[in-house]
Formats: sequence, C-alpha cells, structure tokens
Amino acid sequence: MDNLELIKQISITSPSKIVLLVIDGLGGLPHPKTGKTELETASTPNLDKLAASSICGLIDPVGPGITPGSTPGHLALFGYDPIKYNIGRGVVAALGIDFDLKPDDIAARGNFCTVDSSGLVTDRRAGRIPTEKCTELCKLLDEIKIAGVKLFVRPVKEHRLAVVFGGEGLSPEVSDSDPQQTGVAPKAVKALKPTARRTADIAKEFIAQAKAILAKHHPANMVILRGFSRKPELPTMDEIYKLKPAAIAAYPMYRGLAKLVGMQLMKTGPAITDEFDALKQNYAGYDFFFLHIKGTDSAGEDGDFNRKVNVIEEIDKALPALTGLKPDVIVVTGDHSTPALLKSHSWHAVPVLLYSKWCRADRVGAFSEQACIMGGLGRFPATQLMPLAMANALKLAKFGA
Amino acid sequence: MDNLELIKQISITSPSKIVLLVIDGLGGLPHPKTGKTELETASTPNLDKLAASSICGLIDPVGPGITPGSTPGHLALFGYDPIKYNIGRGVVAALGIDFDLKPDDIAARGNFCTVDSSGLVTDRRAGRIPTEKCTELCKLLDEIKIAGVKLFVRPVKEHRLAVVFGGEGLSPEVSDSDPQQTGVAPKAVKALKPTARRTADIAKEFIAQAKAILAKHHPANMVILRGFSRKPELPTMDEIYKLKPAAIAAYPMYRGLAKLVGMQLMKTGPAITDEFDALKQNYAGYDFFFLHIKGTDSAGEDGDFNRKVNVIEEIDKALPALTGLKPDVIVVTGDHSTPALLKSHSWHAVPVLLYSKWCRADRVGAFSEQACIMGGLGRFPATQLMPLAMANALKLAKFGA
Repeated sequence: MDNLELIKQISITSPSKIVLLVIDGLGGLPHPKTGKTELETASTPNLDKLAASSICGLIDPVGPGITPGSTPGHLALFGYDPIKYNIGRGVVAALGIDFDLKPDDIAARGNFCTVDSSGLVTDRRAGRIPTEKCTELCKLLDEIKIAGVKLFVRPVKEHRLAVVFGGEGLSPEVSDSDPQQTGVAPKAVKALKPTARRTADIAKEFIAQAKAILAKHHPANMVILRGFSRKPELPTMDEIYKLKPAAIAAYPMYRGLAKLVGMQLMKTGPAITDEFDALKQNYAGYDFFFLHIKGTDSAGEDGDFNRKVNVIEEIDKALPALTGLKPDVIVVTGDHSTPALLKSHSWHAVPVLLYSKWCRADRVGAFSEQACIMGGLGRFPATQLMPLAMANALKLAKFGA
Repeated sequence: MDNLELIKQISITSPSKIVLLVIDGLGGLPHPKTGKTELETASTPNLDKLAASSICGLIDPVGPGITPGSTPGHLALFGYDPIKYNIGRGVVAALGIDFDLKPDDIAARGNFCTVDSSGLVTDRRAGRIPTEKCTELCKLLDEIKIAGVKLFVRPVKEHRLAVVFGGEGLSPEVSDSDPQQTGVAPKAVKALKPTARRTADIAKEFIAQAKAILAKHHPANMVILRGFSRKPELPTMDEIYKLKPAAIAAYPMYRGLAKLVGMQLMKTGPAITDEFDALKQNYAGYDFFFLHIKGTDSAGEDGDFNRKVNVIEEIDKALPALTGLKPDVIVVTGDHSTPALLKSHSWHAVPVLLYSKWCRADRVGAFSEQACIMGGLGRFPATQLMPLAMANALKLAKFGA
C-alpha cells in the first residue's frame, strides 16, 4: 500500500479549512556580501510572526540533491510521489491553457525561438515575444494540415505554446526537438519505440511546415517542441483527501497542474493582492486552497536577488489578508529553491511553516532557511506535507485499532 | 524507478571535481571522563574550518539502529542501496587482492586462526601473523586438490586470506565455518539450500585438508571461512553518475569495494600522507576521488580511544593537501561509527560535512557528532550523499518539467 492509499483510507470530511501558500522557488542561497539568502534579507514581520506560532522545517521536494521541475515540485506538495507520477511538460502546458485534453491526445510544449541563417538556435525564447504576437503566430500554425491527425496550436504566454496532436494510434514515446541550448540546430524528433514512428513523422512534418510559415517572422522564426506526453490518470485530491480544493494561480502552468489533481480553478488577476483577494472571495465555498505566487521564481531565474527580496516583502504585506480569514491550517513553503545566485531551480531544501491550533509550535521565531533548520519538523520529503496538513485540520482518522 | 535509475537519467558530465574523504569508523561515543567523543577530543582546526563553510549533518549508513559492515557502509556512501546490493565478504576479499573473479566463482574470506588441542578456537586471528607468513601458508593450501573444482588460496593481509572455488554448478548458499567467537570449535559448513550440498561438501573437504596441513604451523594451525559469495552485477559509478572515479585506499578490502563499483585503483603507500600525496598526483586525471583512511576504525576496534584521537589529528594535519587542490565538492564522513568504548562497529549516526560554493552553509562551526546535530542536512540516509555531492558539483540536471 503506498502512502496515498493509506491517506485515502483514513481521510475524513470536516468543515476545517487548509490554505497552502506556495511561494514559487522560495529557497535561496546567501548573498556573498551579506551572507543572507533572499528570504533572510527580506523584511517579513508577518511571516516571522506566523512562524513563531507554527512548527517549521525544511522540505526536499523530490529528494536530496534533486533539482525539481515545477511539475514534480508541485505534485510532491499535493502529496503525490513525483517520481511515480512523472508528468510530461506537454500535458502540463495544455492543461494550463484550459485545453480539454482527450485520453488519446499527445501534447507537446513549444517555444517560439530564433534561428540564424545556418539554422542554429540563437535564442530559445525568441526574445520573449509578447503574448499577443505568440497568439498571432499560433493562429498561423493552427492552419497546418497533416493527414490523419487533428492538430491544435495554442498560445500559452510570451514565447510559449502548446501543440496537441489528436487522433488514434499516436504515441508519446518521441524525443524533443528542443536542443535545450543555443548555438546548435533543433534536434530531429525521433521515435523512442518502434510504435512511435508515425508520431515522430507527424511531428517532423509539423515542424517542417511551421519552419516555412515562420521564416519571415524573425525573431520568432522557428518553433522547438519538447515533453510529448499523454494525460496521466491521477487520483484526484477529492478522492484521496475528500477535500473540495480550490486553486488560485495567475500563471497558466500552475492552473494546469491544479486541474490535473482535480482542483477547481478560481478567477484571479495577476497581482499578488489580486490572488489574496480571490482567496477571500472564494473562501466560503471550499475547504482547501492552493495559492500560488510566481514572482519569486521568475526573479530567481533572472538572477535578480533584490527583485526576489521585494516579491517576498510584497507577499508578507499581503499575508494579513490570509491570516485574517483564520484558516484552521496554514502552510507556507515553496515547490523548490530558485537561488538568484544560480539563476535556476536548485536542489536546496525549502523552508516550510505549518500553523494550526494543534501544530505543537517549536522555538523558530523567523521564517528563513537558517531558522527552519532548528524547526520541529526537521528535514523531510515534501510528500509528507499534505498528511501533516490534513492531520492538523483534524481530517485524518486514527490508523489501526 | 529506483533512486539510482533516476540519478542515471539526470547525471551529466562536467569538469568539476568531487573528493569523498572516508574516515573509517569515524563516529564515536563520549569518553566517560570527559564526555567527549574521539572526534570531539581531537584537535581538528582544519576540519573545523572546513565545517564552518560547509553544510553538515549526520548520516545513517544502512538505517537507524543498524550496525553496518564495511561493505554496506561503503556501498551506501557510493549511493547504492546496501540492502538491495548485499555483497558477500568473500567477493570483497577476492576483489581486494585483484583476483579476477569469474561470474560462476564462489569466494570465501578466510582467517588463519589458532585452535587448542581440543580443536576450540583460542584466537580468531592467529596472533595477527605477518603477511609474509600468511603468504607462505597460502602457498601450501593452494596445493590442495579437490575433484571437479579449481581452487585458489590467496593471502590478503596478516591473518586474512581469500579462497576461491572455481567451476560449474557451485552455490554461494552455504554457511560460514567461522564461529565469530573463541572458546568454541569452528562450525561445520552447511548447505543452506539443497542445491548447495555439493559446495558444502567441497568446502568441508578443503577445510579438512587445510587442517591437516596447518597442524604443525601454530599459531596459524587452522583456517576458518566466511562470506561464501558470488560476484554481483552492480551498475558502475560511470554508468550511474557519468563520473571517472579514482580510489585511493591502502587497505585491500576497500580497493576491492572500489573496484566493484568501477573505480580505478590508484597506487598509494600505507601512510595517511601517502594517500593524500596519491590524491595530488592523480588529481588531474579523474573527477571523483574516494580517499579511504583505515586507522580510525582499527583503533576503535582495538578499544584504543587515544590512538583513534591521534589518527583523526593526523588526518586533520594532512587536510590542507586536499583543500589546497580546491575541489568543487568536498565530503568528509565515515562509513559507520566505531566507538572505542564498544571496540566494534556500531549503529550510531556518522558526522558528515559537505563543502561547495553552492552548499548553503549552516552555522555549524566544528566537525563533531554534537555540532552536526544542528546542521542544515539534518539526519539522513547515507545513500542520499552522492546525489547531494553530484548536485553541488552541478552534475545533475533538473528532474521533470
């Protein structure tokens, strides 16, 4: 019996409410000049106050040393083993734009990119073209016809798009065309299994036609695809936890992830305060809230230490809107670390605080990487967070007699 | 998918270098008079300085409460699940002397021992006879002929030898003759499965002939065998981590272990400074170094608290030769604890420090059992150390989208 099966057996419905605040890429590394991480640099009186009445610790999203992508990072926070449920980027992209994926559909995540006259990729993001331009180009590519396949090309955000190949007999077992680096040509899509040859040919045909169409649309003069995948069958959070979960996330990918595990998507504006407003507006109707904030991760990826600090401070200022609702359980953490110094996701453990009336608060009086080392939760796998939140909400019955 | 399979998928080659310094049996227990362990008693300014810029913690080699043998202790450090990969002592002994084990061979680890006139073991190590004497006696035993079997008897070190039974249809499923205590007779080798009966008979025949030959060679007047085993199939460190690993170990058993996981064995003299010299001489040619120091464990096994302290101080003095090479990642730990007070391996968690530019140093300012409790790595399974070292060397790509 895996852990989810056990939780499913003992979870119970109750009026108590859980709020999971995910500060994307929260964990950081110390600035060489100050020795303090982004979170330690930020002035966070509200988070510190909450930490003081919480039990704290550090989570490993996938495992020590493993740098998680956004999908495994979030699945782990929702309690799903991210290695068992390894979900393709294409599926996540399609779900993120509310595309109604059918069980047989193959979805790929695409980037508009820039290639030079020799066909070598010079910018994997085509200078991050505006979403309007992306939408316009996707409309052109959506006109491509390939025999025996229903093709859907949809804009995601900026240079990002989703391509869905509908029809029977397709396979997700094909390789990426995205070379994941510049200075080289896009890769040829290859069948990873003999049964995937037709799908590989279809993808190549799509790319060839797209290349011809995009030739005159510099900097977005090429498209690269990755993460060909099919919608997985996941037990929903309702099935496992008997929760009625709501997701508040401005960024499409996280909406897609939330939908995948059966959350209802709430309407929200893009600002941090918009998201906290959406929480307030929908608070009565649900008993679990996933509130996702992207800005910290974006700043970290851009290597902008100060902007990440500022986003954290902005979240801290908005926090009373959340605590004022008096949820029974509040969890604040990240899906992974994104240290500005590394300009990327990283393997470093992520600070976590868990507040409830029954949490058995430790002596951690600040919310930071260093302070959380001394926390009562210690260092633990992120998949254990949901059972802890459920228990603190008194939503888990006794196991065994 | 097990953890090694995951690491294999995301490991990448890069010029960065990792040094794993294994201080055998490092962990200890406090001296009743001072309340300080061997490591806490030793003056270790260099290790303390390194700890101050490292992330620290405590590892459980096999699991809490489990006292590891040298093989599982080391396999865990190299990232292999020591319960899944349970390797016989005989195989390790044979590999340690560069014996070219064939897939069908059965290897046993032997001790020359002393028996009294009643045949009871009075010394399991025959007074630790010199290696020269062991070599001479092994030559005599190597002459033993048993029908249908190719027999090889090889000296290891002091009282230790390896016996290899070559040929078809043999089985490793036979019990030890080594009683693991004095005052009793050697045990009869027994078949643990019906298919192993012939092998048990062959082993008994070998022991009977050896007894006759050794009768006049007091104190080495008998031989006891243990760890009958066959070479396992392990993925190599190159296959998993894409590393080019080098082993620096003076003691045969650890050379055997290193070889088993695909490390290249470097030439080294027996002294601690010899081993650090060997590191320097071979530093350019490899990207992973396993540097093994045996003296701490031997002192612990002998119950010699002060000698263990002295060996630790000797290592500390030699440490600048290692840190001066400026490896990207330095890990210092042990394969298990060997408290002088217990005169044996023990289950106690082992201090570990991990240094890198990206380690997110904690506030631990000394390398000791007590200080490491407060470390940012917490307490964790030793198998997670290699993924952490790889991540800190920026040799692991992101997992999932």
